[in-house]
Amino acid sequence: MRIAELSRTTGVSAATIKYYVRAGLLPPGERTHANQVDYGPAHARRLRLVRALIEIGGMSITDAARVLEVLDGGDLSTWQAVGKAQYALDLRRTAGPGGDPVARAAVDELLARRGWQVFEENPARATLVEVCATLRQLGHDDFVGALDEYAEAVERVAAVDVAVVARQPSVEQTVEYVIVGTVLGDTVLAALRRLAQEHLSRNAFG
Amino acid sequence: MRIAELSRTTGVSAATIKYYVRAGLLPPGERTHANQVDYGPAHARRLRLVRALIEIGGMSITDAARVLEVLDGGDLSTWQAVGKAQYALDLRRTAGPGGDPVARAAVDELLARRGWQVFEENPARATLVEVCATLRQLGHDDFVGALDEYAEAVERVAAVDVAVVARQPSVEQTVEYVIVGTVLGDTVLAALRRLAQEHLSRNAFG
Repeated sequence: MRIAELSRTTGVSAATIKYYVRAGLLPPGERTHANQVDYGPAHARRLRLVRALIEIGGMSITDAARVLEVLDGGDLSTWQAVGKAQYALDLRRTAGPGGDPVARAAVDELLARRGWQVFEENPARATLVEVCATLRQLGHDDFVGALDEYAEAVERVAAVDVAVVARQPSVEQTVEYVIVGTVLGDTVLAALRRLAQEHLSRNAFG
Repeated sequence: MRIAELSRTTGVSAATIKYYVRAGLLPPGERTHANQVDYGPAHARRLRLVRALIEIGGMSITDAARVLEVLDGGDLSTWQAVGKAQYALDLRRTAGPGGDPVARAAVDELLARRGWQVFEENPARATLVEVCATLRQLGHDDFVGALDEYAEAVERVAAVDVAVVARQPSVEQTVEYVIVGTVLGDTVLAALRRLAQEHLSRNAFG
């Protein structure tokens, strides 16, 4: 299909499509005539994925490109590919100090109590340290105090994640699922949390 | 303290502080002399809260202002204040079509199965419908199929949330906790999810 049709199918303007190709988010179409570039269903699919990461996941163009690079990388074992995709999905929006020793110790102890084996380089460690340090600064030690209960509940979420990931038929589909399930999944979980909060608040405060 | 000291204490530049005052995120300082404006510890505290919402929560200035308005509103019962704060924490980044009837029915049925009583206006409903519709478009029905298991795990998260909220000593602190615990809490939960995923992936794919 030509770019106009790709734009109609996906609801993304031709200018944005061209921008995504230049930014490396979307492979270029195939040049079939001097003045015509052809796009296939794979382009439409990828375009929907890019929009989902940016619009629902709130990712920047740079972050989306970094994550999609893992998907396009190929030639990895499932374990390597899952790890690479997970680490590319870094949550930190700023490079914080990351060095609050009290928060760092609290996170290390939490991981030890739950028996979670996690590499030192997992960026989610630094995120957790940073947010816990901020929560303490704001005087919300009560949230930090409930971390064990949160971790226990989240372990069930992650178990569902891993079970669904393990069912994917190819390495490529596994990586795409890790990306989509993690990024869009965060929004699904946040939405479910708000719905459950309203239901439970009704009993607590209603 | 003068603006230079407030800036040193919080690590926020004087220009940004002035911008936040103009945007209504921070109350103005008290003018003590013709050429001097005084800020107190409450300003430093509020400034840290604003930074946390923007930098860790990824909120826009407009969204942060809308949420802080609830905090400054006062004169509400705990139940009203919690509800107002929750609804102000809308997750949607774009006004999607929101109307996918299949996804809408799936969300309604999920809520019914779990017995969650949630108002039609809760913005998290529309978010969930939108993300589920996108997941289906991308061919990830397997994620949508696991919604019941996710909802069960998230209900435990929300139960911890409500228990901690219920322990707050005043309406104002309750509202602040709802805001901070929800926004920063989303990031904490997403980080915990990635850590648990790595641990569980090790067994599944390692």
